[in-house]
Amino acid sequence: MAAQLRVGILGATGTVGQRLVAMLEGHPQLVVTAVAASDRSQGKTFGEACVWRLPGDMPSALRALPVLSPQPPLDCDIVLSSLPADMAGPVEAQFAAAGYPVISNSSSHRMDDDVPLLIPEINAEHLKLIAGRRQKGFIVTNPNCSTIMIALALAPLQARFGVEAVVVTTMQAISGAGYPGVASLDITENVIPYIASEEEKIERETVKILGRVEGARVRPAEFPVSAQCHRVPVVDGHMAAIRVQLGRKAEPGELRDAFTSFRGVPQELGLHTAPPCPILVRDEPDRPQPRLDRDAGGGMSITVGRIARDRVLGHRFVALSHNTIRGAAGAAILNAELLLAQGYLNF
Amino acid sequence: MAAQLRVGILGATGTVGQRLVAMLEGHPQLVVTAVAASDRSQGKTFGEACVWRLPGDMPSALRALPVLSPQPPLDCDIVLSSLPADMAGPVEAQFAAAGYPVISNSSSHRMDDDVPLLIPEINAEHLKLIAGRRQKGFIVTNPNCSTIMIALALAPLQARFGVEAVVVTTMQAISGAGYPGVASLDITENVIPYIASEEEKIERETVKILGRVEGARVRPAEFPVSAQCHRVPVVDGHMAAIRVQLGRKAEPGELRDAFTSFRGVPQELGLHTAPPCPILVRDEPDRPQPRLDRDAGGGMSITVGRIARDRVLGHRFVALSHNTIRGAAGAAILNAELLLAQGYLNF
Amino acid sequence: MAAQLRVGILGATGTVGQRLVAMLEGHPQLVVTAVAASDRSQGKTFGEACVWRLPGDMPSALRALPVLSPQPPLDCDIVLSSLPADMAGPVEAQFAAAGYPVISNSSSHRMDDDVPLLIPEINAEHLKLIAGRRQKGFIVTNPNCSTIMIALALAPLQARFGVEAVVVTTMQAISGAGYPGVASLDITENVIPYIASEEEKIERETVKILGRVEGARVRPAEFPVSAQCHRVPVVDGHMAAIRVQLGRKAEPGELRDAFTSFRGVPQELGLHTAPPCPILVRDEPDRPQPRLDRDAGGGMSITVGRIARDRVLGHRFVALSHNTIRGAAGAAILNAELLLAQGYLNF
Amino acid sequence: MAAQLRVGILGATGTVGQRLVAMLEGHPQLVVTAVAASDRSQGKTFGEACVWRLPGDMPSALRALPVLSPQPPLDCDIVLSSLPADMAGPVEAQFAAAGYPVISNSSSHRMDDDVPLLIPEINAEHLKLIAGRRQKGFIVTNPNCSTIMIALALAPLQARFGVEAVVVTTMQAISGAGYPGVASLDITENVIPYIASEEEKIERETVKILGRVEGARVRPAEFPVSAQCHRVPVVDGHMAAIRVQLGRKAEPGELRDAFTSFRGVPQELGLHTAPPCPILVRDEPDRPQPRLDRDAGGGMSITVGRIARDRVLGHRFVALSHNTIRGAAGAAILNAELLLAQGYLNF
Repeated sequence: MAAQLRVGILGATGTVGQRLVAMLEGHPQLVVTAVAASDRSQGKTFGEACVWRLPGDMPSALRALPVLSPQPPLDCDIVLSSLPADMAGPVEAQFAAAGYPVISNSSSHRMDDDVPLLIPEINAEHLKLIAGRRQKGFIVTNPNCSTIMIALALAPLQARFGVEAVVVTTMQAISGAGYPGVASLDITENVIPYIASEEEKIERETVKILGRVEGARVRPAEFPVSAQCHRVPVVDGHMAAIRVQLGRKAEPGELRDAFTSFRGVPQELGLHTAPPCPILVRDEPDRPQPRLDRDAGGGMSITVGRIARDRVLGHRFVALSHNTIRGAAGAAILNAELLLAQGYLNF
Repeated sequence: MAAQLRVGILGATGTVGQRLVAMLEGHPQLVVTAVAASDRSQGKTFGEACVWRLPGDMPSALRALPVLSPQPPLDCDIVLSSLPADMAGPVEAQFAAAGYPVISNSSSHRMDDDVPLLIPEINAEHLKLIAGRRQKGFIVTNPNCSTIMIALALAPLQARFGVEAVVVTTMQAISGAGYPGVASLDITENVIPYIASEEEKIERETVKILGRVEGARVRPAEFPVSAQCHRVPVVDGHMAAIRVQLGRKAEPGELRDAFTSFRGVPQELGLHTAPPCPILVRDEPDRPQPRLDRDAGGGMSITVGRIARDRVLGHRFVALSHNTIRGAAGAAILNAELLLAQGYLNF
Repeated sequence: MAAQLRVGILGATGTVGQRLVAMLEGHPQLVVTAVAASDRSQGKTFGEACVWRLPGDMPSALRALPVLSPQPPLDCDIVLSSLPADMAGPVEAQFAAAGYPVISNSSSHRMDDDVPLLIPEINAEHLKLIAGRRQKGFIVTNPNCSTIMIALALAPLQARFGVEAVVVTTMQAISGAGYPGVASLDITENVIPYIASEEEKIERETVKILGRVEGARVRPAEFPVSAQCHRVPVVDGHMAAIRVQLGRKAEPGELRDAFTSFRGVPQELGLHTAPPCPILVRDEPDRPQPRLDRDAGGGMSITVGRIARDRVLGHRFVALSHNTIRGAAGAAILNAELLLAQGYLNF
Repeated sequence: MAAQLRVGILGATGTVGQRLVAMLEGHPQLVVTAVAASDRSQGKTFGEACVWRLPGDMPSALRALPVLSPQPPLDCDIVLSSLPADMAGPVEAQFAAAGYPVISNSSSHRMDDDVPLLIPEINAEHLKLIAGRRQKGFIVTNPNCSTIMIALALAPLQARFGVEAVVVTTMQAISGAGYPGVASLDITENVIPYIASEEEKIERETVKILGRVEGARVRPAEFPVSAQCHRVPVVDGHMAAIRVQLGRKAEPGELRDAFTSFRGVPQELGLHTAPPCPILVRDEPDRPQPRLDRDAGGGMSITVGRIARDRVLGHRFVALSHNTIRGAAGAAILNAELLLAQGYLNF
C-alpha cells in the first residue's frame, strides 16, 4: 500500500468534524494525524474533549490524540477544516500561507476569486484556479450543504437542456446547525422559516459552481436562483422542492434520464468516497424522504423524485441529500481524493 | 336573544367534526341539534362513539345525542359537513335536494359550477351563484385547508397590484390528514413530499376563489399557480413559502401594508367567528412558526412574515394558518355566519 | 378594587419568567412593576431583551419596562424569582435581607431549615417557619416541577392510607430545562435517561413537603422515595409512572376517590390561580397524555390515570402536570396568593 | 458451503417481516424460499405487495417471490412467523401439526406448556420441552420485545445475586406497534401511558424465561415483576428504567461486572447473529439513548447504563434494546440458529 496522506482536522470536535473522523476511519489514502479545535478543548485528548454524538463509538485510534490549537504548524500534509465561519477565515488563510493545502467546509472563502468551490462531479476543471500556483498552500472549499444537493441536481439539466431560472424551497435537518445548534424548544413540533445567511449562500454559490473559469476567476452561470429555507424537525437529511425553467422543451422522462445517467470525474477515477451513481431517482409518489433515503450511496448519493411539469416554471422535482455526509464531511473528503488523484497533493 | 339556528353535523366524530363541535359550543347563533357519522358509530351516543382527541373534554351537552345516519331528514335547519370526500359527494347532494342548506368542508362539490367556493373576506359576492334559486337547499363549500391560507394572502395583492403567477411550497401538519391519518412510522423524524390530490386542489381552487362571477358560473383568475406539498411532523398549522409575480412594481413595504390593512365583509359585519385582522404580519426574521402563530386570532387569522424581493418571481413571503380552524371548521362556521347575516338562511 | 401588590420578577426573560409575566397579565391582586435579569439583558427594555417564546405576544404593558440588575432595591413589594440556581442563592438571600418577601422557583434555598417548601394545597402550615419573624424579608420556595406533581398525588394517599414507599419514573418535557436548554440534536427522536440533580431533588423535596413542622424546622416524612428521570421529546407536561406502598390495604377505587375528593386551602380560600380540583382523574385506559391533559384546570390541575394494583409495591398510577404552570410559574403565583390571603404580605 | 435451510416467512410484508427479510439477506445458513401474508397481499409478488419501509431497498432476490396464503404446505424447511397475534394462534398450530418447525415472534403460544419461550443466551435448556417429541413439527417462540431486554438484563443478576423483585417502567418505540400502528396524531409531541396487554406480557413472560424446566413444563421464577409501559415518539429502540431487589448485598460495580461478563450459548457456539457481548455497559451519565445505542452489536446487544443504588428496591439501572432486531426479527433468527446448531432442524 502506498504511504497515506497525513490529515489534520480543524474543528474536529464539532458535528462535521466528528463525521470527518468517522468517515476517515479505515480510509485507504488518508489518515488523521492531528486534531485541532477551539480553546475549550485544547490540552485535552480527543477522547476527553469530544462528546461523541454519532451512533456507535469514536474511532479508538484517535482517543489519545491531543487536541491542538488551530494554527500552523500541525503534524500533517493537508488540513481539513470544519471550523465555524467566524474562525475559519483567518485561520484557513494562515494555514494556506504556511504552505498547507486547506480543504474547507466553511463558508469564509467560498466566494474568493482564487478559491475553487468544488463538487468533483460538476466542476473539477475549476481546479485551474489553483493550478498555476508557485506556493504549495491553497484553499479549496466545498459548498453549503443545501447548495451541493441543488447544484448536483441542476448539473445534468444544465448540460442537457440549459437552465434559465431556479426556484428552490428547502426543508433542512437540525444537524446542519451544528451542536448545540437549534434549541429543542424552538424546533419540536414546529418549522422555522429562517436559517441565517442560507438563502444568500444558495443563490450565490450555485451559480459559481455551475459557472466557467475565465482567466483567474469563475464567471458565474447566468440564471437567477431563488431560495427560501426552512428548518424542520429531522435529524439528518436536507430536502429541496425545486422548480426549474429549462432552456428548451423537455419531457419529464428526459429529466429522469438526465439524472440517472449523470456521472462525473469521481466515478471515472473510481475515487474511494464516490458513489456509483451521484443521483438516484425514485419513482414512488412519496419519495424521497429524509429518514428512508438519506443514507443512499453511503450518504454520498442524492435522491430525486416527483419529477413533473410545473405550471409556472416548466418543470419541478424534489431532491434529498445527507447534509453532513454529501453536504459536508463527505464533500470535503471527496475533494481531497480528487486533489490527490489529480496530483495537487504530491509530497 | 334571537332563536338559534339548529345545526346538524355530518362526520361529527372525525378530526374536523370535533373542531366544529368544539367551536360551536356557546355559539350565539348556532346550536348543534344532530350529529351524523359513518356506519360504525351509529346506534351509539356521541359520547360513546367519539374518541375525543382535542385537549380538554367534549362539550357535555352533546354526550347524549344519538349518532345518526348521514341522510335526510335530520332535525336541523342547516347541515355542516365534514364527511370524507368519497361519501360527501352523493350525501351532500341528497341533503341539498331535500331542502337543506349544506355548508361543506369536503372537496366533492368545490368545483361545481353552481357551488360557491367561499372565503367570506374574499368572495362574498360569489353567493350570487345561489341567490336566484327557487329551492331552499343548496351547497356552499369552503376551500382546501392550504388553499384558504394561500387565497387569503393573495387577495390583497391581487386587489392592489394584480397577480401574474404564484409559486407555493407547503409544509403541512398531520391533523390535515384526519384520524388515524398519517402513520407515526411514516412521519416521525421525517418529511413526506406527497399529499394525495393536494397540489391539484391548490392550483385549481385558488383561481376559482379569486375569480369573478360571470353569469351562472365563476370565471377563474387567469394567473397560473404552482404548488408542491409536503407533510411535516407538526400537529396543527400549515405553512407555505410563497413567491408571487405581481402586475406592477412594488416595494416589500407596500405588500406589508396590503396585508395588514386587509379587511373583508366578515369584519364589516362583525361576524362572531371573524378575527379582527384576517392577516397578521410578523416582522421577526424567523416567524411565522406553526407552534407559536397557529392560534393567532383564535386560529382564524393567518400570519405572514419574511416579506422580501425574490430573484425569480419578484416577491416572496411565508404564510401560516391553523389548518383545522381557519382551514376547515372555522371556515365552515364563518360561511354559515355570512349566509345567516345576508339572509340566505331565513326560516 | 383594592390596591395591587407590586411584583418584581427576577429572571424575567427566561422560560419560567415569561410564564410568570403571562400569568400575571390581568391578575386582580398582583401587578408587575419591575423586571430584572442577568447582565446581557440589562440596559434594554423588556421588549428588546426578551425573545418571547410562548404562543401569542408578550403583554404590551411590559414592553417598555427597563430590564434591571437583579439586586435590591427594586420598585416592588415582593419579588418572584426564577433565576438560574447558580445565581439564585446569594441574590435571593440579599433581597430577603433587604426586607423583601422572596417567592422563589429556584432550587437554591428549598432545603434551608427556615424556608417553607410550599404547595398550598398540602402544607400551608409550613408557613409557621416564617411566622414568628421580626424582619419583613423572607424566602418561600416552591418545589421542583416534577416534585410538585408527585407530592400532590401523594398527599391524599398519605392522609387517607399512609405511605410507606414510593417509586417514581418520570418522563419530562423539554421546557423544564429552560432556554436554550436541551439541544434538538440530543432529544429529537430520542429519550435521555438523565436530568442533572433531578432524581435527588425529587427524593429529598417530596419528604420535606409531606413532613411536619417541629419547632423551627420540618421533620421529613419517613418513607423512602426512589426516582428515575428521563427527558422525552414533549414541549410541555411532565409525566410520572408512580408505584406506592400504602400503610393499609385499599381498593383502587379508594385511591380514585382520595384523588378526586382532594381539596386544600387554596380551594377553600378561593385563591385566584387555584383550580377547582387540584387532582383530576381520567378513566380512559390511555390517559393522561401530555398534549391532551397538560392544560387541565388552566394548567394548575394535575391529572391521574391508570390506577391499578401493583405486584411489587401494591398500587400504581400515572400522573401528569404542566411543568411550567403548576410546576413553576403557577406554583410561585399560588404561593404569593396564599401569603397575601394569610396576611404575610401586608404593607 | 453446506446446504442452506429453506425458510418460509409468515407475515412477511409487516414491520417485523421486513426486518426478517432484511436480516436474512446473505445469511450463511438460512435462505428465504417462501413468503406468506394476509389476504390482501396474496396473488401479488413480494415486490408488489410489500411497501418497503426500512431505509434502502428490499432484497432484490425476493421481489419476484409470490406472496402465498399462510397455510401449509409451503416450500420450506422451517417457518418463521411474525403474524399478528389474532392469526398466529391457529396458523402456527396448523404448521406445527403439518410437521414444520415454527419459530414465532407472535404472542399466541408463548405461555403454552410445551412451547419454549427462548432467549438463547438465557434458557437454551428450555429446548428440553421439545426434545422428546416424536413428530417433527413444533413451536418455539421468542418473548415480547420489551421482555427480551428485561430478561437479558436480569439473567446475570439472577445467576450471581438472586432476584427477589423487579419494577420496570418502559418507554417504547413506535415500530413496536407495527404498521400503520400508532397514529401520528396520537404520539407526536406526546407520551401514551398505555400499550395493550404489554404490562401483562412482561410480568408473565419474564418469569417463564428465567424459570426452570421441571418435567414437561417450566416452573416460573418466583419473584414478582411490576411493569408500567409507555409509548414515546421514538422510531426504534425500547428503553426500560429498572429497579431490582437482589438476593444479597452487592456493590453497583458488581452489577456492572455481572453485565459486562455475561455470555451465553450463542457466544460459545459462535452463532451467526449472536453479538460478541449480549450486554454492553455505558458509563456516561446520560446513556443509553435510543438513537445512539439501538444499533450496538448490530442491534443484537442491549445496552445498560446508570447503574446505581435505589432507596426502595436496592439497585437500579436503565436498559435499551433495538425492539425490531434483538426484540423481534433478530430474536427469531437467533432461535433458528440455535435450533440448527443443536440438531433440532436436521433434514
